[in-house]
Amino acid sequence: MNYFSSDFKLGILGGGQLGKMLLFDTRKFDIQTYVLDPSDEAPCKIACNQFFKGDLMDFETVYNFGKKVDVLTFEIELVNLEALLKLEEEGVKVFPSPKTLKLIQNKGIQKDFYIQHAIPTANYKRFENLKSLIVDILDSKTKLPFVWKCTEFGYDGNGVKVIRQISDLDNLANVECIAEEMVPFKNELAVIVCRNPSGEIKTYPVVEMEFHPEANQVEYVICPARIDDKVAEKARAIALNVSEKFNHVGLLAVEMFQTEDDEILVNEVAPRPHNSGHYSIEASYTSQFENHLRAILNLPLGNTDSKVAGIMVNLSGEEGYSGDVVYQNIEKILGWNGVTPHIYGKKQTRPFRKMGHVTIINQDINEARRIAEDVKNTIRVISGQ
Amino acid sequence: MNYFSSDFKLGILGGGQLGKMLLFDTRKFDIQTYVLDPSDEAPCKIACNQFFKGDLMDFETVYNFGKKVDVLTFEIELVNLEALLKLEEEGVKVFPSPKTLKLIQNKGIQKDFYIQHAIPTANYKRFENLKSLIVDILDSKTKLPFVWKCTEFGYDGNGVKVIRQISDLDNLANVECIAEEMVPFKNELAVIVCRNPSGEIKTYPVVEMEFHPEANQVEYVICPARIDDKVAEKARAIALNVSEKFNHVGLLAVEMFQTEDDEILVNEVAPRPHNSGHYSIEASYTSQFENHLRAILNLPLGNTDSKVAGIMVNLSGEEGYSGDVVYQNIEKILGWNGVTPHIYGKKQTRPFRKMGHVTIINQDINEARRIAEDVKNTIRVISGQ
Repeated sequence: MNYFSSDFKLGILGGGQLGKMLLFDTRKFDIQTYVLDPSDEAPCKIACNQFFKGDLMDFETVYNFGKKVDVLTFEIELVNLEALLKLEEEGVKVFPSPKTLKLIQNKGIQKDFYIQHAIPTANYKRFENLKSLIVDILDSKTKLPFVWKCTEFGYDGNGVKVIRQISDLDNLANVECIAEEMVPFKNELAVIVCRNPSGEIKTYPVVEMEFHPEANQVEYVICPARIDDKVAEKARAIALNVSEKFNHVGLLAVEMFQTEDDEILVNEVAPRPHNSGHYSIEASYTSQFENHLRAILNLPLGNTDSKVAGIMVNLSGEEGYSGDVVYQNIEKILGWNGVTPHIYGKKQTRPFRKMGHVTIINQDINEARRIAEDVKNTIRVISGQ
Repeated sequence: MNYFSSDFKLGILGGGQLGKMLLFDTRKFDIQTYVLDPSDEAPCKIACNQFFKGDLMDFETVYNFGKKVDVLTFEIELVNLEALLKLEEEGVKVFPSPKTLKLIQNKGIQKDFYIQHAIPTANYKRFENLKSLIVDILDSKTKLPFVWKCTEFGYDGNGVKVIRQISDLDNLANVECIAEEMVPFKNELAVIVCRNPSGEIKTYPVVEMEFHPEANQVEYVICPARIDDKVAEKARAIALNVSEKFNHVGLLAVEMFQTEDDEILVNEVAPRPHNSGHYSIEASYTSQFENHLRAILNLPLGNTDSKVAGIMVNLSGEEGYSGDVVYQNIEKILGWNGVTPHIYGKKQTRPFRKMGHVTIINQDINEARRIAEDVKNTIRVISGQ
């Protein structure tokens, strides 16, 4: 198949920042892209070859879009699965496969999959709705505290809550959910796996999510994770196993806990380029986006090693500011060694809205960490006057 | 000035591959871009915010385009200089400055500038036209052999010819030209300088152009150049001096000869991102394109150091093939460590047409050189059936 400067068409469902970063590589290889997104202001709107506006959850819209392209991929899991299944049946190549996506879209099914395949994961119990969970607690079958997770449509911390007393369940949606045992962990880790249809498979180094000590929010994604080599090897081996068991094609980001006694438990997976791999644009021989593209086109995978240490800081809208975005002090951080801001292109900021990220690279990971802290304390995502 | 996700507009004259690679960085920073190019199939047509079709040498076209933007730059020197001068007079920021461009566009004036500023360069003599050069030879004032260069509109080897006998001048255009002394040299080197309006200035490492031993064509651009540190320091110092003397803003690629006795002679300069800096996308902390953008917006310059060794191989259309391009064996080279093809997006190949380049990066420059040779011997730019 000739992908380069040819009539071949890659379809991408979703036109947000992940798609935008993927388009850097489709442009580099001059691969034609069609993008479908519900918003006229999608960051992908320019730099794709054709933009289509439409609902990603609507069967007809996704199906009709899929019929226009040769290979279909997605940058967001919340897409119409039935349309993908039908397209695959009719011979459109859909990667990751909708069969895999089906196993991942619902966290209850995903957890069951881990158990079926002897993949270590925290204990859990599935519930059809919130009411049946409450009954289970009242019957003393589910013990407090635990982590409540809705099984579908959760993202970025939405749909996850620590439950220490029954009243913590107030105001949660009465939807399908799981109750997961709280695992005391030392580190939250992630490994990105890429795999092509021929079965070639590679893992990126283990990254570490460093949390703010009080706010309990991820502040830095650090590559490589500052953990023992043996623990890192174990994490990579488990991630490889997860990808193979899912028979996954494309990128699979595997989020994991490192427990107090150095066990690795799989938390959840995302079948696409992932926030924990953004550092790879600057730090890796091959970025996660290029490797996603290589994988879904069944091209050889690129080297996943790092050239230098990389740390990522998210840029989110500051509380108290809404409106036309201003990146205060961005000129200042541009003056520091190895600092690259990525601005996703959303014109309006809102509290906590993901507006961009900053990558800090350095030969010395401690120096990178020091600069990353300065970056975090300096740049502000606010609104103009 | 707020450049990021704002109403600010950067204008780019020329929509070829250099502009295309610059757009990766304007997209990364979400800076709005307008592009002017004569071709409807310009590689920049997508990924800029607005594309304008028009003649870069036409005063009205360039002037009207310039009035729409806040800062104007170019990716090709062959643009209407009068329009740029008028725009600058009227308050549009034009970088590099048309005053600098005027000194560079004509190779005779450029050479005179070096002499005026005591910048080492090969001896030369200027002629109004070919006829007066021939008279000078017949009068035994200009000695054979020498290098003939037309002073304007030459590019990529066009407009340069080694003259060993008078008949070598047959068929050359009767235009303004220079006759330059042939300097026996060990190496052809280049240094890219970037400088912002505040006067912050940085050089990239010295790169080496490795020539095919028989064909006398550049085969590899190698960074860092495999030369003595003292020679490298001298080359960087001279390049800095050239940039400062031109009072240049943006990138300036300074091409130089390293003579048999390790003198450095400036050959010529290009006031824009340059083929000799393409390796920087993968190998440097900050690519030449990002640093051009930072410079013309008067932002702090990024680190010009390399993360790893980088080698570039040009992809040109193979002789005997014209038509829809096919990159034969590209799948093969993608399987090798640290290999990144850049496909410029020209649908049609022609003999010697610049269609793309391949970067090879590695911790070990010798290993990179070995892989680069395999790349060169494997990928073919041909046309389909």
